[in-house]
Amino acid sequence: MNEPARILIHGASGRMGQALLRLAAGRDDLRVVAAVSRSKPTQRVIDGVPQFAVAEAHGVPAFDVAVDFSLPDGFEAVLAMCQERGAGLVSGTTGLDERQQRAIDLAGERVPVLWAANFSLGVAVLGDLVQRAAAALHGWDCDIVESHHVHKKDAPSGTALALGSRAEQGGLRPRYASLRAGDIVGEHTVQLTGPGERLELVHRATDRDVFARGALLAAKRLAGRPPGRYRVADLFL
Amino acid sequence: MNEPARILIHGASGRMGQALLRLAAGRDDLRVVAAVSRSKPTQRVIDGVPQFAVAEAHGVPAFDVAVDFSLPDGFEAVLAMCQERGAGLVSGTTGLDERQQRAIDLAGERVPVLWAANFSLGVAVLGDLVQRAAAALHGWDCDIVESHHVHKKDAPSGTALALGSRAEQGGLRPRYASLRAGDIVGEHTVQLTGPGERLELVHRATDRDVFARGALLAAKRLAGRPPGRYRVADLFL
Amino acid sequence: MNEPARILIHGASGRMGQALLRLAAGRDDLRVVAAVSRSKPTQRVIDGVPQFAVAEAHGVPAFDVAVDFSLPDGFEAVLAMCQERGAGLVSGTTGLDERQQRAIDLAGERVPVLWAANFSLGVAVLGDLVQRAAAALHGWDCDIVESHHVHKKDAPSGTALALGSRAEQGGLRPRYASLRAGDIVGEHTVQLTGPGERLELVHRATDRDVFARGALLAAKRLAGRPPGRYRVADLFL
Amino acid sequence: MNEPARILIHGASGRMGQALLRLAAGRDDLRVVAAVSRSKPTQRVIDGVPQFAVAEAHGVPAFDVAVDFSLPDGFEAVLAMCQERGAGLVSGTTGLDERQQRAIDLAGERVPVLWAANFSLGVAVLGDLVQRAAAALHGWDCDIVESHHVHKKDAPSGTALALGSRAEQGGLRPRYASLRAGDIVGEHTVQLTGPGERLELVHRATDRDVFARGALLAAKRLAGRPPGRYRVADLFL
Repeated sequence: MNEPARILIHGASGRMGQALLRLAAGRDDLRVVAAVSRSKPTQRVIDGVPQFAVAEAHGVPAFDVAVDFSLPDGFEAVLAMCQERGAGLVSGTTGLDERQQRAIDLAGERVPVLWAANFSLGVAVLGDLVQRAAAALHGWDCDIVESHHVHKKDAPSGTALALGSRAEQGGLRPRYASLRAGDIVGEHTVQLTGPGERLELVHRATDRDVFARGALLAAKRLAGRPPGRYRVADLFL
Repeated sequence: MNEPARILIHGASGRMGQALLRLAAGRDDLRVVAAVSRSKPTQRVIDGVPQFAVAEAHGVPAFDVAVDFSLPDGFEAVLAMCQERGAGLVSGTTGLDERQQRAIDLAGERVPVLWAANFSLGVAVLGDLVQRAAAALHGWDCDIVESHHVHKKDAPSGTALALGSRAEQGGLRPRYASLRAGDIVGEHTVQLTGPGERLELVHRATDRDVFARGALLAAKRLAGRPPGRYRVADLFL
Repeated sequence: MNEPARILIHGASGRMGQALLRLAAGRDDLRVVAAVSRSKPTQRVIDGVPQFAVAEAHGVPAFDVAVDFSLPDGFEAVLAMCQERGAGLVSGTTGLDERQQRAIDLAGERVPVLWAANFSLGVAVLGDLVQRAAAALHGWDCDIVESHHVHKKDAPSGTALALGSRAEQGGLRPRYASLRAGDIVGEHTVQLTGPGERLELVHRATDRDVFARGALLAAKRLAGRPPGRYRVADLFL
Repeated sequence: MNEPARILIHGASGRMGQALLRLAAGRDDLRVVAAVSRSKPTQRVIDGVPQFAVAEAHGVPAFDVAVDFSLPDGFEAVLAMCQERGAGLVSGTTGLDERQQRAIDLAGERVPVLWAANFSLGVAVLGDLVQRAAAALHGWDCDIVESHHVHKKDAPSGTALALGSRAEQGGLRPRYASLRAGDIVGEHTVQLTGPGERLELVHRATDRDVFARGALLAAKRLAGRPPGRYRVADLFL
């Protein structure tokens, strides 16, 4: 794919949306063709990017992949739009319910879709390591400790639950502990304890941009792929 | 004090009691003059140490300090015996209620007494550091994470609560998390999080003997002191 | 001191200088009255702050404290200027030689001066903790491990050496290890190892602004103090 | 294999040799048929195990696997004995030179042989994780930090070098740091640092028996295998 991938940012006014716009502006392999926000934009074009309210989103230009970090109640709309346009979807919107997760499965029959709790490369690798370790360490104890800033509402974090799911696929049942302190970007420790020895597998995100950078890389790699429901590891590892 | 201190071991058949007897045997500055156990001893003298059941404890020879790691229901008896004999008491018995803690205060008017959740030198130092750090770090978040073996019943550990109390004396309100995994001897992390930076103060016990060794050192240092309720830090730092 | 302290930024074009200007702009208790850079400024006033080249620095307006993050070869000049003006100096310039350190001592007879390798509150607290712990842990081993981004040239870091000096004042001789990796802002671990137990005292800086914020706080607290050579702990703890 | 594997302990008087004898005594699936030590044994049979000096080793009874933790200068002898007897060899003897390592390769054409720097299950898993992570994290920095007790002479540890070799197979070049402190049994941290995030993969051995237990498990699993040079991971994962 030599042409830059055409990206739509959904949830453009949020913190992640703003980071996506800022980081995409510095890349040659992506071009943001539209920014969609919940409320009506104050300017029609900002830094060269056409702005749309959700209510106007039918008018967005052609795009290859939508990158969505918004709220659950607008999720069906962006999913429908991607299917209509034959475009891919990369979503990090948290709090989706089971029906919405099944809708992603269905959409995967027509377009390439990726939903993930975490877009960092390191966390994708960690998930893989956790499953392998768990599969080799029968009968060991598995504890997952996560630390985030005090503004984070959900606990355990979606990432912790995803890591726990990998441990279960490996055969160990995880227990969780959550810390909320200061401005911690995000840390996850998977501790595996056996007789007389212990493994600690730790991921530390030190810069919030890690997640936006990962989502853009995922969008770039999803563009042009066949329909299907992808995982971060499918695109990164 | 040039004569070896005369020590009575109360709770001699427990894991800590056995460790105390084993470690005391290797020291010149202590002499164990009696071992008191809940049930009737199978031999009258073991490795040179006279053995007594609790019911026979009135017959123990003269001693300078009792070292007690037993159960709450026998605590008043050993406390009374120390006061009758004019001897000191070092106790690590956990699960004492408020009335029993007050009884320690009262006993401290007549004999030297020390009750502690943890007898390691490193934990004594850590408590001091936590209070100083908390006093200097106004408005920072304070989290205490402790990890112990799966057989430990209480959570948070007594040591975690004691560390938290030091943080409160310094002006920070701690939150607790507890992990129970494998055969971990005991680890405590006090995490202090401020804007853009963080302190982590960690203690790791790697050998259970640390606690028995510390209790014997405390007994040695308590022997001959004036009456009073002592803390580990008073004797170690 | 109810009037905002008048601050001169020396080394204004460097990374720290830029952070100092950005953060000072958001504070009511400070007012930057001059920014001095090595080369001739392209504009006379930027964001309300008058700009000066080093060669023009004699013309700067009155100030209470100079904050200097520059290079060793310009250090005498800023030190002399502070003495002439009767102003304080906060300096984080690294690589000063012994003669320059003695010049700071001399200047301390006339004006308040503070030179430090690290201006974070957490590191100031850590230094205090290290000395106290070392003084209580006779015969324990002391290891200091520091991690920084790959662009950092000196090793061990000035902060690691300062922590080591506190350990030595407490009676332990430290050993050092240095890691250089990625974009790590700065991490220091002081590990104290005894028989069967261990203390790990860790500081993690997660945001570079921590250092600039600390230097501004130090400048604010130094303003109006009597002459003397101060340490960060004198102002922060 | 329903019969207990017949084990010869080579280097029986060393610390590992003693641990092997103690732990093997508690297992049904192994039977120690001979203990070979450098010097002449003081008793012919100890705890039911026949004792031999190296000079008498030609007289040992039939065995399935020799477990060797001794010194390099006796290594050829035990390797030759295993080949003559058609028995396997599990060796953790450190300090072997290249010629001796090639001799192991050659022996692997006739009998099953395993030489390893570390026999813990956790370290075997960690090696696997390190290689996978390194292969996925192109361009990240890789640092390996190991801590051991002050009596350990070699640095970096053989285990650190083995982990580094796995990182290199994954495409990253490791750097090493070594700490020697107190009575630390053994800790290895592989730190992988990328832009804005970091993975730390840590193994802590808390009980020396971990290594002896692992060597016995390896011996049990090596017994009856076809000739070849095995790695711990081949038997454990």
